[in-house]
Formats: sequence, C-alpha cells, structure tokens
Amino acid sequence: MAQLEAQDLAQAVIDRMADCKEPRFKEVMSALVRHAHAFVSEVKLTPEEWVTAIQFLTDTGKMCDEKRQEFILLSDTLGVSMLVVAIDQAKAAAKHRPKPGEKPPTEATVLGPFFWPGAPELELGADIGAGHPGTPAYYRGRVTDTAGKPVANCTLDVWSGDGEGFYDMQKGPDAGMQLRARFRTDKEGNYSFWSIRPSYYPVPDDGPVGKMLHRMGRHPNRPGHMHTMLEAPGYEKLVTHLFVSDSPYIESDAVFGVRDSLIVDFQSHAAGKAPDGRMMNTPYHTCSYDFVLVPKA
Amino acid sequence: MAQLEAQDLAQAVIDRMADCKEPRFKEVMSALVRHAHAFVSEVKLTPEEWVTAIQFLTDTGKMCDEKRQEFILLSDTLGVSMLVVAIDQAKAAAKHRPKPGEKPPTEATVLGPFFWPGAPELELGADIGAGHPGTPAYYRGRVTDTAGKPVANCTLDVWSGDGEGFYDMQKGPDAGMQLRARFRTDKEGNYSFWSIRPSYYPVPDDGPVGKMLHRMGRHPNRPGHMHTMLEAPGYEKLVTHLFVSDSPYIESDAVFGVRDSLIVDFQSHAAGKAPDGRMMNTPYHTCSYDFVLVPKA
Repeated sequence: MAQLEAQDLAQAVIDRMADCKEPRFKEVMSALVRHAHAFVSEVKLTPEEWVTAIQFLTDTGKMCDEKRQEFILLSDTLGVSMLVVAIDQAKAAAKHRPKPGEKPPTEATVLGPFFWPGAPELELGADIGAGHPGTPAYYRGRVTDTAGKPVANCTLDVWSGDGEGFYDMQKGPDAGMQLRARFRTDKEGNYSFWSIRPSYYPVPDDGPVGKMLHRMGRHPNRPGHMHTMLEAPGYEKLVTHLFVSDSPYIESDAVFGVRDSLIVDFQSHAAGKAPDGRMMNTPYHTCSYDFVLVPKA
Repeated sequence: MAQLEAQDLAQAVIDRMADCKEPRFKEVMSALVRHAHAFVSEVKLTPEEWVTAIQFLTDTGKMCDEKRQEFILLSDTLGVSMLVVAIDQAKAAAKHRPKPGEKPPTEATVLGPFFWPGAPELELGADIGAGHPGTPAYYRGRVTDTAGKPVANCTLDVWSGDGEGFYDMQKGPDAGMQLRARFRTDKEGNYSFWSIRPSYYPVPDDGPVGKMLHRMGRHPNRPGHMHTMLEAPGYEKLVTHLFVSDSPYIESDAVFGVRDSLIVDFQSHAAGKAPDGRMMNTPYHTCSYDFVLVPKA
C-alpha cells in the first residue's frame, strides 16, 4: 500500500527515518516535519502560495554572501533568533544554582547578521570610533561573575554601526573592518574603550526580507545598540547588546531583541576632560555598564 | 516595556502585523510564526543547531539555478509538496458535487523539480523517446470529465527521465529539451504518444538535501513514472504521474507521491506490430490510462 492520505503524510515522513543513526537529528527533524505539516494543513496553503514560498526561499538564499546573511535576517525578524537565545540562556541559568545574594546574570540577545570574526585586539581605552560619523562615547564597566568576583582577561568583542546607522559590512566590497575591536579586561575585570553612540537603523531592507516586512506592515528599524560578546575560560559565553535608552524604536525593535536590563542611559557631557583624562573638544557621552557572567556548571 | 519572554515572542511578532493590509498574507504569516516558534520551543533548538539550519538554508539557496530547484526538492522529500497537492485536490473535489454514477477524478501528485515550461507541441502518436536509453513504450488513453464526457483539445504536457533515470535537465548546461512534449486530445478525448518506460532514479542527492536524506537514513529514490499535466478550458488543471507498477521503490517513493490509482501495469510485448500499426524491431511496452478531469465550479 503506497497510498498516503494528507493527515498521514507527516508520520510517513517520520517513519522513513527508522534507520537514522543520530537520535537528536531524528528528534529535531521529526518535530520540524510535524510542525511544517501542521502549518500547511492549518492555513490550507495553496499551490500558488507554495510557489511563492519556494521563490522567497530561493531569493533569500541568493541574497546571501560573505557580508550579507538574509536567512539570519529572516530568523531575526520572525523572532526565532531571539527565541533560540532565550531558550539557551534559560538552559544555562537552570544549570547554575545561584546562592542567596548573587547577582543576576546579564541577559543575552541576538548575534545579528553583522558579526565579523577576527576584529583587532586593542589596548583598553582605545578609540575605535575616531573618524566615523557620530557623537563620541566612552564605554566603561566591570565584568564579574554572579558571586561578584572580577573576571580578568575576559575577551570583550564589540561592534556597532556608525552614528548614522551603517555597519562597515554595508559600506561596499572594499570597506575593511570599522568600529569593531576586541578588548581584554584587566585584573579587576575592568574594561573601557571609546567609540560612537550608536544610532537606530533599518535592517537591510532591500532584499526579500525587506519586502516581507513591508507586506507585513512593519518598520525595519532597530534601536541604537552596541554589540558585545564576552568570552572567558570557565564561564558561559555571553552575546548581548547595550541599548541606547532614548533611541527611537526602543519599544519596537524589528528583531525583538530588547531586554529591559540591557537599556543604558548614555550620559551627555559638554566638551572637556573625560573620565579617562582625555580632553574632548566636542560634546560626548559616557555609557557605564557592568556585565555578569555565569560560571560553567 | 520592551521586554518579551520566550513564550510571548510569537504573539509579539504577530501583533507587529497590525498594519498589514493583506488578510490572507497576515493569516499565513501568523500561522507560520506560531508553528515555527512552537517547533523551536519543543525541541529547545540550540544556538549551534540554529547556525546549522541557517547554513543549510543558505547552501540550499546557493544550489538553485535555472535547472536545479533544491528548495522544491526539500519540500518534496519532507512530504510538504504532496500535502499541498492533497489539500488542493480535496478543495477542488469539495466544490464539485458528483452525481451518482460519476467517475472519480484522477488523483494529483507532485509537480517535481524537472518541469520545463514550453515543451514542443507535437502530433498525437509522435515518438519523443527515439534515440534515448530505455525500452520503447506506447502511451494511450482518453481524457473525459467525471460525467464521462470526452475532453477534446486538452493539452497534455508529458515529461520523464530516460530509461536510465536521467532527465534532460541533469545532462549538462548544453542539453536541450529531451523526452518532453505537449499533445492535444482529439475530438473524442483520445491521446497517444511514444516514449520510453521510465526507470526509477535517485532525486539529485549531491546537494544539501541529499546530505539531509543521508543523515535521515533514507534512500533518495523514486519509482519510475511519466509526468503528466492536463489543462483544458472549463476544467481544473491536473498535475500527476503514471507510475510503473513493477518499479523498485513503488512502496517508498522518496517524495511520497505515489497514489494507488496512478499505478499502471506496463504491458510487455515482443517485437512486432504495435497497436498504432508501427512495426517494432525490439520488444516494447504499452501503457493505457484514462484521465478524468473535474469541471470547474
């Protein structure tokens, strides 16, 4: 009997995995098949809509290159990336039993499509924003664990768009790395660097995902944020942002990444002596934020 | 309050479509978001698995070109294409109230990734298999509606791989159309043409979908079949196959497309005079099949 009715198709696909040797892969693919079939059945997807979906996925793939990841953008704008982040952080938190009085770990958010591995490692206090549009901002704070113990030698990868909302990756094929660096915390877990105060910006919306957002009636904007990625031996890796509190779109981030605990008031200062002793000829901001890492179980 | 917890994310994405002006698009995308989030939550998809999924989708997009549609292959091998077909045919059938004694309409199956629009229109009885590997086969039958009325001037698009299982599209960039044609039924709804008896074959398995099938522990094969697409004014379009009854994999089609009513016994004949008067120097087959179309509501 080769005949399969609509309601039996998902199970038939799953049954065909009887010889699968990877239990987790089988579990994930079985769930994917069940949910995909449930979706198609629920909306009674038409052949014409199916063709549109195939074309959309194909166009999305074609849009991807070394500096553009349209599928990440799709996942981000459908809230899937943030869901994966939230599940992962809940899993790490569940492994770590906090003692009374411990600090809550810094919340994670999306990696986004603009991470570029291998940024230059710079001295603490270095300026990665000089020469780029935007108001200068001095970032400083401490990295500790949940017990308050300083995390020394923690790698802090930072990246952002410029003060007009453009990342280096969006500035043409010849643009090298800009507004990116890696720093290492000192013995007391301190970090500091100069960059600009990031602006809100639209996610790249000239591709298939942009068209999708438009049809959804959605704006493509993200509130201004500084990306950070923290890695230190013995601690859970942390990928997060610092959000500019008074940035437009802070209430409607196109990728659903905002966490209240990551919103920072960027203090405004007139020209003059900055906290690190630097003499500023122009107004500038300071952003103070302490990160809290979870020890690995 | 920008904060969204994992279980509220799907609804937040849906709420963001408040200004969507296309109700059906909103309905489909809302369901997609709900099911995608339910899938990710159920399996607790890890960040590493998410990266693998992004890479898989990107690779699948990169594999697509004019003659290779890897996303259709993905949809086919996950049973999604056949589900869309089944839902669509059920919808058309529900609109048509059959009278007592009417014939059941011919069942539909998948279009597959090898349809190439614009095949040459040939006279009934023409041979599109000459010069290609495979045993000659004579196809003949009638197209009627459910009431038994002949459907004259019905376009019958036919295509298949050769007797070794290869489609023209797989034979390199310079291979033109082979083993494809369009015929028109005569006044009595009759059709006839010569081709070869199609062989079973693997779906293209040198790409991301092939790797997926391998990891699933699945074979990539489809039983031998002749693709047909029937179009006539006033009738629902029909996309289907005729399956070779004694073909390997008839019980485990890699794309779940087999319907019992589409399985045909290809009769074997010794060299000699064929039903259309043609003198055959070699053994050949005949395939007799009558198609039944549903009048448009």
